[in-house]
Amino acid sequence: MAEEQAFACHVDAEELRCFIEQALEIRGADEPSRQAVSRALITASLMGTDSHGVRLLPHYLKALSGGRINGAPQLRLNRRLPGTAVLNADNAFGHLAGYRAIQHACDMAREVGIGAVAVSHSSHFGAAGCYALAAAEQGMIGMAMCNSDPFVLLHGSKRPFHGTNPIAFAAPVEGDNPLLLDMATSAIPWNRVQQYAAIDRDLPPDIAATTTGETTTDASQAEALLPLGGAGFGFKGAGLASMVEVLSSMLANMLNGFRLLPMAGPDMTTPRGVGHFFLVMNPEGFTERAYFQARMQEYLSDLRGMEPVQGRQVMAPGDREWEQRKRRSQQGIPLDWAQRDAYRDIALQLGLERLNEHP
Amino acid sequence: MAEEQAFACHVDAEELRCFIEQALEIRGADEPSRQAVSRALITASLMGTDSHGVRLLPHYLKALSGGRINGAPQLRLNRRLPGTAVLNADNAFGHLAGYRAIQHACDMAREVGIGAVAVSHSSHFGAAGCYALAAAEQGMIGMAMCNSDPFVLLHGSKRPFHGTNPIAFAAPVEGDNPLLLDMATSAIPWNRVQQYAAIDRDLPPDIAATTTGETTTDASQAEALLPLGGAGFGFKGAGLASMVEVLSSMLANMLNGFRLLPMAGPDMTTPRGVGHFFLVMNPEGFTERAYFQARMQEYLSDLRGMEPVQGRQVMAPGDREWEQRKRRSQQGIPLDWAQRDAYRDIALQLGLERLNEHP
Repeated sequence: MAEEQAFACHVDAEELRCFIEQALEIRGADEPSRQAVSRALITASLMGTDSHGVRLLPHYLKALSGGRINGAPQLRLNRRLPGTAVLNADNAFGHLAGYRAIQHACDMAREVGIGAVAVSHSSHFGAAGCYALAAAEQGMIGMAMCNSDPFVLLHGSKRPFHGTNPIAFAAPVEGDNPLLLDMATSAIPWNRVQQYAAIDRDLPPDIAATTTGETTTDASQAEALLPLGGAGFGFKGAGLASMVEVLSSMLANMLNGFRLLPMAGPDMTTPRGVGHFFLVMNPEGFTERAYFQARMQEYLSDLRGMEPVQGRQVMAPGDREWEQRKRRSQQGIPLDWAQRDAYRDIALQLGLERLNEHP
Repeated sequence: MAEEQAFACHVDAEELRCFIEQALEIRGADEPSRQAVSRALITASLMGTDSHGVRLLPHYLKALSGGRINGAPQLRLNRRLPGTAVLNADNAFGHLAGYRAIQHACDMAREVGIGAVAVSHSSHFGAAGCYALAAAEQGMIGMAMCNSDPFVLLHGSKRPFHGTNPIAFAAPVEGDNPLLLDMATSAIPWNRVQQYAAIDRDLPPDIAATTTGETTTDASQAEALLPLGGAGFGFKGAGLASMVEVLSSMLANMLNGFRLLPMAGPDMTTPRGVGHFFLVMNPEGFTERAYFQARMQEYLSDLRGMEPVQGRQVMAPGDREWEQRKRRSQQGIPLDWAQRDAYRDIALQLGLERLNEHP
């Protein structure tokens, strides 16, 4: 969402992917971990989800070096019933856990029509949309959710209780990009507050609060987010966050987000025990695929045909992301000044060749 | 949400249940239909969801008499895969379709861990929370969704596109009432706008719009609702509404909400083809029930222990509803003046004994 002029340079996506994998390898991550992390970060950055994209590599390297994240995990799937399973991630990168879990859910959905996997002992997985998208790319309807440490006020609470607890949903569209929703249940994601602070940009009103629970537009003063719906209707965002919490932590027998160690540290040695939840549905478990696809196309055509308010644009969920992906696949992934410096530092520290920085 | 002083009288819940069933019987509804409608309306009214409670009986009687709703339907379940099914509701009351579908989903979840039922050829089902609750009462995690005719703007559209497309979620809590979320993906439900108009009360800002897409606080001028998130963040509410639409209409091979006949008529003879979606998860498909319950209790205790902002109260999803249910089970269900007159009219027209109206 940050404007293009705030960026320092652009970097080719494939070059960035290689750089990320090399850096992770040097810090001890095995091949499946490296591939999952680079896939998720590049996917997010290409779609314009900069808050959850390549910006996060320095953080992940710290968590890996510190021992919080296990770079060579043994993931264990326990399929307790034909449509449900729990995946113990052995403190893996959340990205590896996420791609594995959504694949298991797809496999179950092919067999019994629907599949859900709760993930235990995991870590930050980046953008939830990556995993929902991975299901849609196989012709399935996918959902992904995750808890996190507290950043978001309850409706009426002084201090944060829930994480930004995202919900992602993707559905396949024949001959087109999937429908894709990826949203925090707070008004904006926490990472975006940090990003606004980094570029010294004002936050919209009624979405963030200081330590005393007062709302603020100064990103550097923001210590908590309001739930989606703001001061008046935040019980809805808080309720959705509760749903995410129940599915992500309780089904995985993990601590709820309020009890998690903070993502930002300072402790980078203790595994955090993040929980995720993945749900996949096979459209053919409900109707003929041709009917489903015809209805999807009719719906999206109806939606995109709606007249916009002057100066606005009507888009289906994901349309903005596919536009960005098209542009960035050609022009490269933009880095802001802080990110560019961070990547230069990593290159220096790890003895890697510096990325080619284009204007 | 309307203040108690706006009510004309209170009526005993059991008496109201009998009255509703008698009225429906006279208009030709069979026993399963009568029981399902009265159960859903009384459940909603007891929980304080007045917009979707006993207020709707006059509307349902019209739809039944007109032939839009089939009072003696033959529902047909097609379980296409072990965890997924479609229920053709034969233009039944949505309440009957809803209770049947969530029961089928519970049965599948007991067997394979998870079950989802898409419902085709249905009608308005009242409050989505009723069906999620029915699953939680069996120790299951339940979800319910429904499309409707357009009331809600897209993010940036001039005219309404989505229905209020509700999402309900309920999870069982041992020895306590379930966690229950029941929310429209608009900022407020459309029925509540009508209710505010009836009692001449101002709407909050940034949640409703006139025919030209301008926001308004005058309930009588409101012709459309903004999606949850309002003018700034409505892409989230609109995205959630898309998710509901895909699951409720596309999986059931029904028309999307934009193409539905309006609930309010004037056509009360043509079935509308409303779609619903129900999802049930068995906690035991993921972890031991004892672990799940311990985590739920820990979470709710953490949540309810949070310090509120001065003058506010911190509540878990459903807490407000259970308080209302306790009060109304003792004091009766309140009727506003319009509802009281409507129930008097029904008694007169159908030759039923008038309800005992308490202050």
